[in-house]
Amino acid sequence: MKRNIAVLQGDGIGREVTRGAVEILEAVAQRYGHEFDFQYGDIGGGAIDLTGSPLPDDTVKICQNSDAVLLGAVGGPKWDDQPAHLRPERGLLKIRKDLNLYANIRPISYYSSLSESSPLKKEFIEDVDFVIVRELTGGLYFGKPSERVERDGKEAVVDTLFYQKSEMKRIIELAFAMASNRKKKVTSVDKANVLESSRMWRETAEEVAKDYPDVTLEHMLVDNAAMQLIKNPKQFDIIVTENMFGDILSDEASVLTGSLGMLPSASISAEGPNLYEPIHGSAPDIAGKNLANPIGTILSAASMLRLSFGLEDEAHAVEQAVETVLEYGLRTGDIANGQRDITTTSEMIAEIKASL
Amino acid sequence: MKRNIAVLQGDGIGREVTRGAVEILEAVAQRYGHEFDFQYGDIGGGAIDLTGSPLPDDTVKICQNSDAVLLGAVGGPKWDDQPAHLRPERGLLKIRKDLNLYANIRPISYYSSLSESSPLKKEFIEDVDFVIVRELTGGLYFGKPSERVERDGKEAVVDTLFYQKSEMKRIIELAFAMASNRKKKVTSVDKANVLESSRMWRETAEEVAKDYPDVTLEHMLVDNAAMQLIKNPKQFDIIVTENMFGDILSDEASVLTGSLGMLPSASISAEGPNLYEPIHGSAPDIAGKNLANPIGTILSAASMLRLSFGLEDEAHAVEQAVETVLEYGLRTGDIANGQRDITTTSEMIAEIKASL
Ligand SMILES: CC(C)[C@H](C(=O)O)[C@@H](O)C(=O)O
Ligand SMILES: CC(C)[C@H](C(=O)O)[C@@H](O)C(=O)O
Repeated sequence: MKRNIAVLQGDGIGREVTRGAVEILEAVAQRYGHEFDFQYGDIGGGAIDLTGSPLPDDTVKICQNSDAVLLGAVGGPKWDDQPAHLRPERGLLKIRKDLNLYANIRPISYYSSLSESSPLKKEFIEDVDFVIVRELTGGLYFGKPSERVERDGKEAVVDTLFYQKSEMKRIIELAFAMASNRKKKVTSVDKANVLESSRMWRETAEEVAKDYPDVTLEHMLVDNAAMQLIKNPKQFDIIVTENMFGDILSDEASVLTGSLGMLPSASISAEGPNLYEPIHGSAPDIAGKNLANPIGTILSAASMLRLSFGLEDEAHAVEQAVETVLEYGLRTGDIANGQRDITTTSEMIAEIKASL
Repeated sequence: MKRNIAVLQGDGIGREVTRGAVEILEAVAQRYGHEFDFQYGDIGGGAIDLTGSPLPDDTVKICQNSDAVLLGAVGGPKWDDQPAHLRPERGLLKIRKDLNLYANIRPISYYSSLSESSPLKKEFIEDVDFVIVRELTGGLYFGKPSERVERDGKEAVVDTLFYQKSEMKRIIELAFAMASNRKKKVTSVDKANVLESSRMWRETAEEVAKDYPDVTLEHMLVDNAAMQLIKNPKQFDIIVTENMFGDILSDEASVLTGSLGMLPSASISAEGPNLYEPIHGSAPDIAGKNLANPIGTILSAASMLRLSFGLEDEAHAVEQAVETVLEYGLRTGDIANGQRDITTTSEMIAEIKASL
């Protein structure tokens, strides 16, 4: 069975890291006898330069005809002064909407070999193992109106946090389904003491919880969650929350284990291909220098093998290969923590491939 | 000159900690020859039980007739299932609006005697010294509509993020004024790649910056800020941001130095009395047990002396007294970090008074 994989390299280090993941996927195909076909599409700043749009229709078509999408990263200082609709991030927001990628999944887990790189004391992060499930197509990101207005003759502005109850339900259900295969705890994060949308979110979580009697549901206010992530990250199994809260908390959480450059994410579609990308950005300062850490993207490819293709053994093999090279002591600059011997991007890729 | 201080004890440990601050203020008055008159008002859950409202009109009147307001904390499980308008937090939101408390100021600084209590490694938090300036009367907290709606026959919900440009301007100006007396750096936090309100916020910050040529303005996206607070908190001087982002980031930041129970805050009014309160909550689990840490409230009272009454020496004396007892090794449970000898609330208050 042939699988079509859309590859959106994007900007900055996006090219280098996606190249790494593609190499690993090719090696997996060869080893296990699969056929992967890679189709490349433009997105972000590069796409703006080439076509005038951060997400050309061609790219959307390539994605829609694929079985899964691999994304690098978008953005860079070159496009910072563009008007909003001509910024690289718009490409990302639009692909989420166009592919109906309603859930962004970010696992946060402890690598003992990397505990040195964490800002947190070891006893706070040892055994941390949780997943943030972030709603990705609603809330303040897409609500209308989002515009300048005049009120009582004065300059003002409005943005809109909008959700359908069904959008809340589907992502909370996903969170419960995931928890029931893990530590059986869902922490639903909201701001129910202020927002009406959060009160609906909380009710919806209570309703969904009835279908999962073996999973414990806990509600946590977003401000408290921002504290608890640092004070006691071990308490979490699955955290589920709306789009903007998820944006903030998932980036916060990514710092805990000191492994930003290593963290994968998966964005789940309601009907079409899922999208897989590392959580780090385009890191323009090190782009093209063979310094980027390709592991976040390679682990995203592993998630693709597991979640989109059902290839559990293959996914596991990639994850194992990553663990192996880390145990050898290979370190790109971001996780080197003072170690003098820095591994380049291409060496890291080659070593992971060799350990497959 | 007589000063009228409104005291809103609130719920849970609110009574114990405000009692501590009042004792210290009385000692200051005696020592330095001032006259402070304390008027007590109800707020929060206790007020609901007594009057049916989380903020009775009487309380508002007491505050409006005061020179400064001291608040403990509100809320508790007893009122968790109340409808939204009958919850203790409503009292807090309403007093902010009624007194026009547009800016919440939270200093975060490193206490070497407490570095053990922090989840962060010492090298990340040593010398941390910044202030979060949070907008307090706009944004998603008060925007209308905030209600359930039907869209295309389906259940949905909307909240509204609304700001007047003038509301942005006054708080950003305050942030710059503060920075020019400190390390001369303002980090303005927004989500300008998504929100129109953030783009207006960013423009406004640029405009205000022109009047402060000696202060450096930096823009930071809120998701990045949530990371940077953990990765590199030393980089900050003044952080200024809108209401909801400020709620999340200030609680996150309060954990860094391991001193949640010690942190004061000041809410600045556009025209009337300011309000001073610790940043911790009502901690119902330890309420009435003489276990609460009164230092956050006592340091809030010190801020009152400085900011509302211009009594710099007196404020400094209180802060010094707090440092002194910490250096003695006195520790309430929250900052004891395994130390066996726990100081009670009343002992802590007495010792601070004795050190004045
Ligand atoms: C680039 C930006 C629009 C995006 C977001 O806010 O969703 C990013 O921060 C992310 O988390 O993927
Ligand atoms: C109690 C709640 C409404 C309040 C807020 O969100 O502002 C609290 O979290 C705070 O930060 O003072």
